Amino acid sequence: MRRLFLFFLTLPLLTTAQTDENLVQYVHPIIGTQRMGHVYPGATSPFGAVQLSPDTDTIPYEVNGKYNPDVYKYCAGYQYDDKTIVGFSHTHFSGTGHSDLGDFLIMPTVGELKLNPGVAGQPHSGFRSAFSHTTETAEADYYKVRLDDYNILAELTTTTRVGFHQYTFPPTDQAHIILDLMSGIYNYEDKNVWTYVRVVNDTLVTGYRETSGWARTRRVYFAITFSTPFYQYGARKYDRRQAYHGFWGHFDQNHNFPDLAGRQLRMHFDFHAQEGGKVKIKFALSPVSMEGALLNLRTEIPGWDFEAVRRQGQEAWNRELGKVRIDAGQEEKENFYTSMYHAFINPTVYMDVDGGYRGLDQQDHKADGFVNYTTFSLWDTHRALHPLFNILQPTRNADMIRSMLAHYEQSAEHMLPIWSHYANENWCMSGYHSVSVICDAIVKGNTPFDAGKALDACIATSQRRSFESLGVYIDKGYIPAEQDGVSVSSTLEYAYDDWCIAQAAKKLGRMEVYATYSKRSENYKNVWDPSVGYMRPRLTDGSFRKDFDVLSTNGQGFIEGNAWNYSLYVPHDPAALIAMYGGSKRFVQHLDSLFTMELPDKFFAETEDITRDGIIGNYVHGNEPSHHVAYLYNWTDQPWKTQERVRMILKKQYGPAPDGLGGNDDCGQMSAWYIFTALGFYPVAPGSDQYSLGSPAVNGATLRLENGKTFTITAENQGDKNVYVKKITLNGQLLTRRYITHQEIMDGGKLVFYMSAKH
Amino acid sequence: MRRLFLFFLTLPLLTTAQTDENLVQYVHPIIGTQRMGHVYPGATSPFGAVQLSPDTDTIPYEVNGKYNPDVYKYCAGYQYDDKTIVGFSHTHFSGTGHSDLGDFLIMPTVGELKLNPGVAGQPHSGFRSAFSHTTETAEADYYKVRLDDYNILAELTTTTRVGFHQYTFPPTDQAHIILDLMSGIYNYEDKNVWTYVRVVNDTLVTGYRETSGWARTRRVYFAITFSTPFYQYGARKYDRRQAYHGFWGHFDQNHNFPDLAGRQLRMHFDFHAQEGGKVKIKFALSPVSMEGALLNLRTEIPGWDFEAVRRQGQEAWNRELGKVRIDAGQEEKENFYTSMYHAFINPTVYMDVDGGYRGLDQQDHKADGFVNYTTFSLWDTHRALHPLFNILQPTRNADMIRSMLAHYEQSAEHMLPIWSHYANENWCMSGYHSVSVICDAIVKGNTPFDAGKALDACIATSQRRSFESLGVYIDKGYIPAEQDGVSVSSTLEYAYDDWCIAQAAKKLGRMEVYATYSKRSENYKNVWDPSVGYMRPRLTDGSFRKDFDVLSTNGQGFIEGNAWNYSLYVPHDPAALIAMYGGSKRFVQHLDSLFTMELPDKFFAETEDITRDGIIGNYVHGNEPSHHVAYLYNWTDQPWKTQERVRMILKKQYGPAPDGLGGNDDCGQMSAWYIFTALGFYPVAPGSDQYSLGSPAVNGATLRLENGKTFTITAENQGDKNVYVKKITLNGQLLTRRYITHQEIMDGGKLVFYMSAKH
Repeated sequence: MRRLFLFFLTLPLLTTAQTDENLVQYVHPIIGTQRMGHVYPGATSPFGAVQLSPDTDTIPYEVNGKYNPDVYKYCAGYQYDDKTIVGFSHTHFSGTGHSDLGDFLIMPTVGELKLNPGVAGQPHSGFRSAFSHTTETAEADYYKVRLDDYNILAELTTTTRVGFHQYTFPPTDQAHIILDLMSGIYNYEDKNVWTYVRVVNDTLVTGYRETSGWARTRRVYFAITFSTPFYQYGARKYDRRQAYHGFWGHFDQNHNFPDLAGRQLRMHFDFHAQEGGKVKIKFALSPVSMEGALLNLRTEIPGWDFEAVRRQGQEAWNRELGKVRIDAGQEEKENFYTSMYHAFINPTVYMDVDGGYRGLDQQDHKADGFVNYTTFSLWDTHRALHPLFNILQPTRNADMIRSMLAHYEQSAEHMLPIWSHYANENWCMSGYHSVSVICDAIVKGNTPFDAGKALDACIATSQRRSFESLGVYIDKGYIPAEQDGVSVSSTLEYAYDDWCIAQAAKKLGRMEVYATYSKRSENYKNVWDPSVGYMRPRLTDGSFRKDFDVLSTNGQGFIEGNAWNYSLYVPHDPAALIAMYGGSKRFVQHLDSLFTMELPDKFFAETEDITRDGIIGNYVHGNEPSHHVAYLYNWTDQPWKTQERVRMILKKQYGPAPDGLGGNDDCGQMSAWYIFTALGFYPVAPGSDQYSLGSPAVNGATLRLENGKTFTITAENQGDKNVYVKKITLNGQLLTRRYITHQEIMDGGKLVFYMSAKH
Repeated sequence: MRRLFLFFLTLPLLTTAQTDENLVQYVHPIIGTQRMGHVYPGATSPFGAVQLSPDTDTIPYEVNGKYNPDVYKYCAGYQYDDKTIVGFSHTHFSGTGHSDLGDFLIMPTVGELKLNPGVAGQPHSGFRSAFSHTTETAEADYYKVRLDDYNILAELTTTTRVGFHQYTFPPTDQAHIILDLMSGIYNYEDKNVWTYVRVVNDTLVTGYRETSGWARTRRVYFAITFSTPFYQYGARKYDRRQAYHGFWGHFDQNHNFPDLAGRQLRMHFDFHAQEGGKVKIKFALSPVSMEGALLNLRTEIPGWDFEAVRRQGQEAWNRELGKVRIDAGQEEKENFYTSMYHAFINPTVYMDVDGGYRGLDQQDHKADGFVNYTTFSLWDTHRALHPLFNILQPTRNADMIRSMLAHYEQSAEHMLPIWSHYANENWCMSGYHSVSVICDAIVKGNTPFDAGKALDACIATSQRRSFESLGVYIDKGYIPAEQDGVSVSSTLEYAYDDWCIAQAAKKLGRMEVYATYSKRSENYKNVWDPSVGYMRPRLTDGSFRKDFDVLSTNGQGFIEGNAWNYSLYVPHDPAALIAMYGGSKRFVQHLDSLFTMELPDKFFAETEDITRDGIIGNYVHGNEPSHHVAYLYNWTDQPWKTQERVRMILKKQYGPAPDGLGGNDDCGQMSAWYIFTALGFYPVAPGSDQYSLGSPAVNGATLRLENGKTFTITAENQGDKNVYVKKITLNGQLLTRRYITHQEIMDGGKLVFYMSAKH
């Protein structure tokens, strides 16, 4: 699956103050840009609000009224195999399977003005340009490419809220910067709700766009400054039709008219360029106002020194990456630090430098004492990403929880976020796993917020009867299959979330809540059919549904995981699960089958978000419900199989090449799995303070914690063959359990694995 | 033209503190609701932001892709001859010829829920209801009607920013309040840009709607409280299509779902009603935010006493109407005070109680030390309405000018408003007559604002070369007919505006500006064709266009006025105009012809915004360019013809009946003409401090000025036949001139006309 790939690095020299190794050299944002990874190669800052990246196509969601399957490929706007770049837009999800964003496409061109993007297969059919990977460089917070049609060198970097473009033109009297306000990712007809642009003067443009895409009501404000004054500008409207707005003859609104609005708008700004002439653009975003965007712009990048901004951005990345320093080979370092990079680009900051942000209630708010974040892909990221943050980014994780609590306060449904971005709730996937994130932080003591109130929010969310069959779940202990297409997944996930609430309640001494939710957390048993040994759709009358295919997902009561995979989803009580399977031996046999069975072709046709690449046997690493599964051997008498499997998954599912991600990175969850697993442990059940021990894929690692302490991991005799753990010591003491605790990590210390080629 | 009409008054008792006569009794908002008046009969406060009025039809702008001429009838949402009411909406223009607004239609119904408005000709085809004028009452700030289909008594009153509904239901288990968020006036396909609604609890709903109608980008926020909790609610979306927003199955979004958004939305709120059961609704608007609407609601109407709010509203009207107390017959009082009412409902307040408003730059602002107004129909209202305000509402007029200056500050084009409403510039009609309003106030000394800066804004506006042929006008002194369809009108109006600037500059001692603009103000001469004695379209080469029809407007270089009428448009120098016509005698003959000639039928088919009702001979009172014309006899040796004509116009064009307005009231301009003329004087050229004297249609009048002084007018021996003025005294001194000055009025004093049946 992995292909050989050479990375050409053009890193600027870092300041001498930075004495540690330059870790940015190991980050290759191009990894995962081919096929299913759905990450973007462009520039972004750690958790940055701006993701400035090339879009290789602007694919409509529909063609002739029918769903266009190609749109899925373009969740991040970029596919490695494409030959043209349409332009550079400022917002991108990283690794999602559904999408949105792609705001404010900028494209520099030369010669005759074209305002149509053109078609990929037809050279020069529009403003898009051919490009080649040989002239492309993708680094943390820096992207460079030559636009071959125009002989323009394009360079991009960012600060948290500002995209910085640097375009080097050939000598020309016809240099254009196109601002395409129609372009977007997952572009439905009618997705653009409204666009407003004001040309304030010949170097400053402000405006906003409102879209109704995945986020139902989403408005992004912008402010753009140009390093060079444009000598003219213009706009074209592509609205299907327009209301009558007085006597338009009062002005020629297509040329040099400073006050534009409509649904579908493209603009151009025209320059004269000398040899080596550069046009630089600072493009700031705000969730609140044009003034906010301008404030962000002026605060974050007061000057025009592109190299300095790039250097600052890469220094910021070095600081974040340096939270873990590993001793490993080149390839492992590239995998590891690219995973760190992908883990640390979301959730994203969602507020102006003065704290202003748009709330879920569509009103403006000020974040009081915290950084407000958005892009919560919680069904994915509660598993490993937020637990990773509890170790490496505890302050940010607490602020993310504060952001979730603000969402809760602003929610008309009085619920915590499910899948939320840009002041919208997208109601995506099963469960309500902000509960997991919050309770995990409470259990682990990372609570610089009001833990009691946070628990109340979790409880309120878990009692929202009108939410996806939750009422009947509360009443019956499971969701009848007649009522809900994902009845089994939801029952299992609710049971896990219930357990999380119980754990947090216990930690906070609220024993009545603990008792209630501990009871609810056993509801997974209600969809277990012992006669077949699977979780199975159950009907209202208590009987199991006859029609049942253990390999199918769609319509079978499951989502992104079939009965084989989802039946293992009791992360909070593997021992009980194993007992249901008939004990350790039968369970191991079952797990072994999962990893080794051969699947019929129809499985691939029917199953979402995966390709053969993302599958090992029937184990689907490309989707999340199985992410804890390889660690379940730890609860049997054959823990060495965990060690063997996780090393095999690392090798098969990750690699330092464009196709190096076996499935959607899902906002960092796939990468967080890599980081934990490569370090030798994994949070099987967030909400527990335990990390299940695996097999480190590094020789050593140092975790530099925010509390000033250091936790080191050493894997003696580690190698591709030496994947088995003979023994483990923690701070010199032999460890006889198969987990370490959060507190043990946060206290600092030394964990040593003694590796062997034999189990 | 006028029909007999009986007004049934149901005025509440006013407080005893109000010792003066109750003038509200003479106000009949129903006057002008039939045919062309385009006023609305509903409830509003003086200059109120809410105009809560029944809509008798919701007419689409287009039918099958073609302009629907019926939409013009519904500029105010109501036509007297209609038999059904669709509902009660909260914003209406008064008397316009183009339109917008009609926000947030509320309709109470009983029985089976219908969410479709139905069709006027088909009883019970939707939620609309039959009604009859016999159960309808329209007063200043109070409207009542019985909805016959449902036996519901509907009553409406307002404060400045809040509409107050009171619905008395028959006993029913199925009482509904429909909130139609699709309905609007001048409803284009795609006019609704976006709608957002949040049901906060069972008595509170907030939200906003953005439209792109006449105002290109217009957002109105609302907050609604109900006196009685609804027991359930629901919504239906009529969007043509919607983007995918996650798994909608998570919630049933049609029933009791508190968080709604879309383009086309209708909602219903359901109640149980007992005998005489009332559901009251307070519906607040804000230009800024839902919070702002809620603040307005709670500040302006904290309780639920409908009668008290109505009483306060009518007391406020009495205070405003009481600024002029007249001695006249019943019919004249009804005409006069209804004119006062129509003059004092626009421009409208456009800010929250805390001063927050949306600026033309689409950013939020706070009005600092002034009340921000909108709805500036300046082509109409600069003529008489703003001059009237300089006498009767000087504080408000200065605040309106401050609002115009804020608009200027926020304008991307750096221009004062042309036709502006709700933070938008509609670019409607010729000229830029905020210049007239501002310069008139400067000349008259009503300048509690920075007059120098205001003059600068006027000058900047007059130099905006890219605006409607202004560049070529500046260069050539006229607009070549090849370049502009309204070349003559614009040349004449620019020349008048230039003169206004000159007058203000003179007042402020800026003599260079005075000289420059005095010169520009003579440009009207450049479109005068002495060979035919008309203003005439002129070509670039200086020749006059051959093709020329003195009766036509369309395509002839004119707008809302043909060559006959527009050739008289030199309000700032009638003496020079008369000289061009060949002197007083020939000019009088010409004017006489204007008032007496018979027009061919095709004239009526071709001419905008008028019917035969609005025309006397070829004099078009229903359009504004002629409003000064009857006063031009004052510059000849036959001023008695001014006296005769203006009395004739008062009689023919105004009357206390539904069809009592001969043309669009145009945001109070027609009414302001009535008020001035009935009082015996008129501002022929705003920007001058002189009022041309006519023939009072009242026996006497007392103007109570804001400065505490009183100006009284007496018309001795006045009557329908005694329309001629034998002599005039001012403060006992014989007046030998044909005008009085602004200062003479503002100083207080006594003007006596001695009337006669003979001239």
